[in-house]
Amino acid sequence: MDVMEAILSRRSIRRYTDEPVPEEVITELMEAAMSAPSASNQQPWQFVIINDRRILDEIPKFHPYAHMLKEASWAIAVCGDQNLATMSEYWVQDCSAATQNILIAAHARGLGAVWLGVYPREERAKTAQKLLGLPEHVIPLCFISIGYPAEKKPPANRYDASRVHRNRW
Amino acid sequence: MDVMEAILSRRSIRRYTDEPVPEEVITELMEAAMSAPSASNQQPWQFVIINDRRILDEIPKFHPYAHMLKEASWAIAVCGDQNLATMSEYWVQDCSAATQNILIAAHARGLGAVWLGVYPREERAKTAQKLLGLPEHVIPLCFISIGYPAEKKPPANRYDASRVHRNRW
Repeated sequence: MDVMEAILSRRSIRRYTDEPVPEEVITELMEAAMSAPSASNQQPWQFVIINDRRILDEIPKFHPYAHMLKEASWAIAVCGDQNLATMSEYWVQDCSAATQNILIAAHARGLGAVWLGVYPREERAKTAQKLLGLPEHVIPLCFISIGYPAEKKPPANRYDASRVHRNRW
Repeated sequence: MDVMEAILSRRSIRRYTDEPVPEEVITELMEAAMSAPSASNQQPWQFVIINDRRILDEIPKFHPYAHMLKEASWAIAVCGDQNLATMSEYWVQDCSAATQNILIAAHARGLGAVWLGVYPREERAKTAQKLLGLPEHVIPLCFISIGYPAEKKPPANRYDASRVHRNRW
């Protein structure tokens, strides 16, 4: 798929067929994730790829917008490793760039995906950390829910010229 | 360009030719930026596109890694508008996703670009805010430097299997 087409037509997909997504495809998404830029190239990310049904079903019990994980083939937890974050103030931005790469790559591979915010909601992050057995220094930024899409959405066309300022506000 | 190729081969490009980048191309990048997902679809972003040489030359005076702006055709300031951020805790993630879309789209359009961190470095953000005449509620997250590339870099291949954990840590 063409890059601009992928970026412009990507939507949040919350309904999936029951066809499992092969792990090789998830590995491709991991390659995309780790190709993101990061502050001083610190690459402060860790990923938990989840297809254990018991774990997937646990997440909606503490995450109010994660009900679609009951149908999803996989979830990816994108996490910031504070021991790797040499420029600690930028790990959220680095991990967000990695997340966006995953979303675009997933769409290009014919998958549906949606970004589920965790950090900086403290309670949510702590519970996710416990569920996945993450050490203290690994903070879950978000979950990404992934499956083959069972819904179709047209491009959103969110472009708004009033948000673009020339040279000064 | 193919999506995966674009994601995997994108690099931070800091040297540019003196060929100006047409504004239509920057507008395409803005379309890519605003196609990013955001928490509750709040779209809390504002952008300042800068090609005024005096402003471009001012930025390296307070940003220690922005020297390439003296050669760049454009800078884009990606900003978070706190009045639009209905879920205020997520604006950094939303604007980071928009930034990553710009970087991928720029690469696909044959441009070179690099992400220059601003927020949460308070002094840097304040100075950028003043330079661009931004209101108090519009916080610059980063600058993106853009031009036609005068350097070539091979794909970085940052994939590291040890960063991928299955189901639990």
